[in-house]
Amino acid sequence: MSEKNLIEKLCIKNEKKIILLIMDGVAGLPINGKTELEAAKTPNLDALAEKSEVGLSLPILPGITPGSGPGHLGVFGYNPLDYEIGRGVLEAVGIGMKLDNKSLAARCNFCTIDKNKIITDRRAGRIPTEKNIELCKKLKENIKMIEDVEVIIEAGKEHRFVVVFRGEGLEEPISDADPQKEGLSYLYSKALAPAAEKSARIVNKFLDKVIEVLKDEHPANAALLRGAAKTPDIPSMEKRFKLKAAAIAVYPMYRGLASLVGMELLDAGQTIKDEIETLKKHYNDYDFFFIHIKKTDSYGEDGNFDNKIHIIEEVDELMPEILKLNPDVLCITADHSTPCLLKAHSWHPVPLLIYSPFVRPSGIKGFNEKECAKGNLGIIESKYIINLLLANALKLNKYGA
Amino acid sequence: MSEKNLIEKLCIKNEKKIILLIMDGVAGLPINGKTELEAAKTPNLDALAEKSEVGLSLPILPGITPGSGPGHLGVFGYNPLDYEIGRGVLEAVGIGMKLDNKSLAARCNFCTIDKNKIITDRRAGRIPTEKNIELCKKLKENIKMIEDVEVIIEAGKEHRFVVVFRGEGLEEPISDADPQKEGLSYLYSKALAPAAEKSARIVNKFLDKVIEVLKDEHPANAALLRGAAKTPDIPSMEKRFKLKAAAIAVYPMYRGLASLVGMELLDAGQTIKDEIETLKKHYNDYDFFFIHIKKTDSYGEDGNFDNKIHIIEEVDELMPEILKLNPDVLCITADHSTPCLLKAHSWHPVPLLIYSPFVRPSGIKGFNEKECAKGNLGIIESKYIINLLLANALKLNKYGA
Repeated sequence: MSEKNLIEKLCIKNEKKIILLIMDGVAGLPINGKTELEAAKTPNLDALAEKSEVGLSLPILPGITPGSGPGHLGVFGYNPLDYEIGRGVLEAVGIGMKLDNKSLAARCNFCTIDKNKIITDRRAGRIPTEKNIELCKKLKENIKMIEDVEVIIEAGKEHRFVVVFRGEGLEEPISDADPQKEGLSYLYSKALAPAAEKSARIVNKFLDKVIEVLKDEHPANAALLRGAAKTPDIPSMEKRFKLKAAAIAVYPMYRGLASLVGMELLDAGQTIKDEIETLKKHYNDYDFFFIHIKKTDSYGEDGNFDNKIHIIEEVDELMPEILKLNPDVLCITADHSTPCLLKAHSWHPVPLLIYSPFVRPSGIKGFNEKECAKGNLGIIESKYIINLLLANALKLNKYGA
Repeated sequence: MSEKNLIEKLCIKNEKKIILLIMDGVAGLPINGKTELEAAKTPNLDALAEKSEVGLSLPILPGITPGSGPGHLGVFGYNPLDYEIGRGVLEAVGIGMKLDNKSLAARCNFCTIDKNKIITDRRAGRIPTEKNIELCKKLKENIKMIEDVEVIIEAGKEHRFVVVFRGEGLEEPISDADPQKEGLSYLYSKALAPAAEKSARIVNKFLDKVIEVLKDEHPANAALLRGAAKTPDIPSMEKRFKLKAAAIAVYPMYRGLASLVGMELLDAGQTIKDEIETLKKHYNDYDFFFIHIKKTDSYGEDGNFDNKIHIIEEVDELMPEILKLNPDVLCITADHSTPCLLKAHSWHPVPLLIYSPFVRPSGIKGFNEKECAKGNLGIIESKYIINLLLANALKLNKYGA
């Protein structure tokens, strides 16, 4: 039996509730001898770690740094190597666009071309976002359908926007409509497989249409298009794990990722406190809650050690609010490390904590990288975390007689 | 090279002896702060653990609770996801029936049907075992062959019995001949693949024959049949590992599991002491011994913490007897956890101890879950234990030049 079939076969539904708290990028590297988690004052997390099972979660494989998509997919229980989320899809869900299995999503830049269709500026002088919004409005009004395909356009920041094509027969893969360098000729997309001919044709008709609509604009008078992708065919958490799952996340990308695995998206407010209030309000309505803390990652990317610590401490202060709900299973972990030292995602394994009535207490003295490395869960690939959460919630039948 | 081929290719035969002691379900969860192994006084096991390599063995995968079949297959060196043991097979070997690759085994209930073949009692009033034996005798006398297929019947407890069909062309899968509910019509088996047509036909002729033979009986006047299965095609330990293996197990199911991988079954007596005597008596005749301790699991299932401790202590007291034999490799572990707290098998990894002249001593202070979690073997999937035993017995060649 395959691992995938195994877990689907063994899952049962019961009333027990699982909370998964992902502190995005919380794990780090020492600066002046201490990591962000070691430097933060976290009495509540430390006390919880001592009576929990702990270990390290390996997001993908040793040495592999995950993007946000694979990082979260793993912790949601999906092998990130089985389900690839194309760049266009991530951009689209990242600004809150809805995708279905007929959608082909791509990210675009406004750019400048001359009268010979030579690209003179790949970012159209980084036009301000307001101008972007105005241009996207114009495109929306003028490009609604191409053949039998619906065209949906959403502005991003500066020169960036996203286009989603929705219709029958829009297959991957197609090449990028972007020569990647200025001074080169405008480049159309090509089908990279026979089944993708329609996608390439629609994309190229769209690009021509953009040039036509923007002919009197300057500097943004054309568009480059990259990363065209369909959503991977991901079974929902309901189908795969029999979980009625809800996402409590403030940022659109994480809401989008959660929606790709079929979670319902709750109105999470703006702050971490708002998120916990949302959890409390909806606690009776679902049996799985994903709570996403964004700013640990943001401050990691900024290299802002002190602010990252403050976010960790803010979460720690709110822990009693979560524990008051008396969840059957509580898991705290990260999708990947974002060490301030690197100002970027990294490959390092991340602390993992699982608390339930059926754990062997770790006895460790703090929720951080060094202590969790001593933990009784050892180092496990993130895709197996869900098995442990389901098991601790008694939602998994025995395998074999 | 596949993992399977690797190990078969590297195995060599030598005179060294391996003892594998499986304390069924011995691992647990804390009650009042201590697990069963932590609460037991085990000076011999503790001393051995200190000079052995130790770690935790993961029976299947994180979070997966194994039944007895997959639990043992793993420790015997077979990936439990590759070899599925059907319910009928497990029941048959569980009451000591011999199976070969032409055998289709199924479990049956005596039941009650009315004159319209409506099932009025799926368990025939739970007839006493003596009545069951009497009825099975009658069936045996009257049903010996169906077409070219031999029929072997053995009584179980109360209303349960097992039937084995032995002949050519008896393929799986077939559906259960059991509507699962009373008040419904008697249900025959159906072939679930073209190759299984003969199996379904033989099974249905058998069920009709049972009704005919029992026509004057009441309440047991028919049979329901479930879990029809063939033995998985498991290579023997001799073939796969070049081991002449013997099983010392008191309970039929574990003797049956051992026979599925080609172990010879020794007369193990009734007690743990008897089992050790059996080991001593046959020590010169084999190079691999599987010794099975059942009652750690039984008392775990009962939630009887004190009695589980007593069994652990009994094993500990007998350790010097085993050590006196001076085995080249001694391994002590479990097939799965059976925490008294859960009164059931569980998913938690189990202590693993390997002792040979070629180990790096762990230096840990006790043979239990917490100490073994600190061990130098880390957490390993049970299917890899055999590699370590073979290696420590110098029965594995180098891979590659």
